[in-house]
Amino acid sequence: VVPRREAPAPASGDVRGRGFPERASLEAASAWLDAQPAALGREAVPLDQAAGRVLAAPPIAPVGLPALDLCLADGHAVRAAEVLGASAYDPARLRLVAPGQPVPSGAASRVALGQPLPAGADAVLPFELAQASDGVLEVAAGVAEGAGVERASGQVAAGAALPGLTGPLRRQDLALLRALGLATLDVIRRPRVRLLIAGPRPAAAGPTGSDAPPELDGPLLRHLVERDGGLLLPAPIPGPAGFAEALVQALRTAGDDLLLVAGRTGTGLDDDAPVLLAAEGRLALHGISLRPGGSTALGLAGRPVVLLPGEPLACLFAYELLAGRLVRRLGGRDPGLPHPTREAVAGRKLVSAVGVADVSLVRLVAGQVEPVAAPGEGGLAAAARADGFVLVPAALEGFAPGARVTVHLQEG
Amino acid sequence: VVPRREAPAPASGDVRGRGFPERASLEAASAWLDAQPAALGREAVPLDQAAGRVLAAPPIAPVGLPALDLCLADGHAVRAAEVLGASAYDPARLRLVAPGQPVPSGAASRVALGQPLPAGADAVLPFELAQASDGVLEVAAGVAEGAGVERASGQVAAGAALPGLTGPLRRQDLALLRALGLATLDVIRRPRVRLLIAGPRPAAAGPTGSDAPPELDGPLLRHLVERDGGLLLPAPIPGPAGFAEALVQALRTAGDDLLLVAGRTGTGLDDDAPVLLAAEGRLALHGISLRPGGSTALGLAGRPVVLLPGEPLACLFAYELLAGRLVRRLGGRDPGLPHPTREAVAGRKLVSAVGVADVSLVRLVAGQVEPVAAPGEGGLAAAARADGFVLVPAALEGFAPGARVTVHLQEG
Repeated sequence: VVPRREAPAPASGDVRGRGFPERASLEAASAWLDAQPAALGREAVPLDQAAGRVLAAPPIAPVGLPALDLCLADGHAVRAAEVLGASAYDPARLRLVAPGQPVPSGAASRVALGQPLPAGADAVLPFELAQASDGVLEVAAGVAEGAGVERASGQVAAGAALPGLTGPLRRQDLALLRALGLATLDVIRRPRVRLLIAGPRPAAAGPTGSDAPPELDGPLLRHLVERDGGLLLPAPIPGPAGFAEALVQALRTAGDDLLLVAGRTGTGLDDDAPVLLAAEGRLALHGISLRPGGSTALGLAGRPVVLLPGEPLACLFAYELLAGRLVRRLGGRDPGLPHPTREAVAGRKLVSAVGVADVSLVRLVAGQVEPVAAPGEGGLAAAARADGFVLVPAALEGFAPGARVTVHLQEG
Repeated sequence: VVPRREAPAPASGDVRGRGFPERASLEAASAWLDAQPAALGREAVPLDQAAGRVLAAPPIAPVGLPALDLCLADGHAVRAAEVLGASAYDPARLRLVAPGQPVPSGAASRVALGQPLPAGADAVLPFELAQASDGVLEVAAGVAEGAGVERASGQVAAGAALPGLTGPLRRQDLALLRALGLATLDVIRRPRVRLLIAGPRPAAAGPTGSDAPPELDGPLLRHLVERDGGLLLPAPIPGPAGFAEALVQALRTAGDDLLLVAGRTGTGLDDDAPVLLAAEGRLALHGISLRPGGSTALGLAGRPVVLLPGEPLACLFAYELLAGRLVRRLGGRDPGLPHPTREAVAGRKLVSAVGVADVSLVRLVAGQVEPVAAPGEGGLAAAARADGFVLVPAALEGFAPGARVTVHLQEG
């Protein structure tokens, strides 16, 4: 099933043993990804499994919230007009009726936060402002009509569309939907992401120099795809000899919305992933002016295919900046970088090459941004020291000290 | 096993049916929590289960990273001095030796990114800069010694303590530790948090006004405790009649580092949680100048106990600002609020009462901060509309338009 090497040359040519004749800009690659159709269906999920999911449409409140006038405090339900002007020197005296009963004129009843307001009452007086004894309540202060009361439909009217629930559902969003009595939600289907990892080259060196190096891309990508709401369809790691066959099989297998491949995208003689994609489908672009991550390839084989570099940091940032756009957009999320950001001032120069979008790993020291390594250098040790990264656009040769930059914070 | 109501009065007195005579400041409550001992043990966990865990001590690199000089590019390994001054017009000619073999004088060999640098070579020339044919490499450009090479121990020296890994472990941190060949990590034990939820009052109203209201605190608290690294020991929801007995049993049960209770902390006659804590252990303080969350109580019963209000937003923010401090600190994390923050300008006044620390729910509109409701108002619908919250200190009567404020972003 492995195509012969004489397969039609990809758009950018076969770079193996030669190098990249040219590279696409990060903007062009992003635009290609953003132009892919993204019309996943919807599905109903139980409310308690909907954290992080994205609603397919604003839900309609089946009832008002609250459904009845509710007490917002522990205390006594009264008629405000009957305690007007009351004070410690001239208290109003009300007859206490049993809790839960209507409050007639001249009366009050004990209530607790969250209970329905008794009929007849229009305000709740906190316990602090009255003294009960022998069935009589001495009220030491006036209270405005509606004080301590939450009116029926005060939060949400029955039949209203609930606004503001456009992103991944947070716990407080789910609490609102649960309070409205909704049991299932109509959400966008999770994008199915098939993941094929080439694994380290057999001749590459492991920690002790003689053993095989550990496989690092799989744990990174599984985490990132899940963070972005994707549903993983992992393929077994084929080993170096079986990679080409495994990739062709994955390219020909239906049932996913995106195929992600890590490894075999560079200029080495065994970097055959782009050639195989060109043979089986369409290689749209290979080589991006991005560091790290410059050997990324994009294409189609019945659905979008992203070929990520195998080097772990290149794999990580090619996912964040490119593949992740599609995962996020397919799932109804904002395609942009998902990290919390912080605007801060560069305390030292962030160096970068003109013509290349550089990921500058940085840390925040006393509120200022400092690089932990030059772009593409420092490896995983630099990434572990970094609080996040600054993306330096291709048009700039870095940021000078004192420049305001946006740090994308990589949180735990 | 339920103590009688004549139990010793708590520090702040029994507030049921009377109200709070005074309240502790948020700072005093935080200081009490921060003064509790926090010396959890450590445990060894497999690397692939360590995401989000906190290291007990900086790990020592068992080997250098990389262990050998490695190639940082696909191309040809050369001796830099032998291609000095080479150009397209005056190329250097080198003999190609088999990949993986040492590179003698006058020779070069093909290499791939991540492979060990062949003995004898001191630089890697990308494929773009040379042309191979018939066993001869024509080199069209010079290269500096060390270019395209990552020196052994360049990232981390063998025996060095790894700095910067002080927070919850991120995926890139784990990738570094995995690359060093570490299989298990020495981490701080997760704090065990016993969770007892009182559940809604039977007389409170559900979505349709007649049914029982849904239980909202459990899903919120389970998520928050897990977010903060806690290990949940949930207790069954006892129902209103069984709450007192369930609380006494939980107070007397060992095996957790913190007991969290939600509900029955207010001034209603059935708000017996603080009284039961005072009878079984020690009630340190009850009533905090915090809105929402003012009926929170703190105390001890062999270990810290936090009694949270049952109203969902009060429960949420009392956890975030108080109970969560202890969960985070017990687990070796920063006890402060864990949300990403953004500094922004108030576009409208954020109102607040002097003397009360107010949680102002806000959204960001065109980069400016706007309140979605007055403090303590708007309920879950306001929380769902909010991007986050601003904490207005007790000393302030709010923030005027134009003031710079810190928004704690509640992400999905």
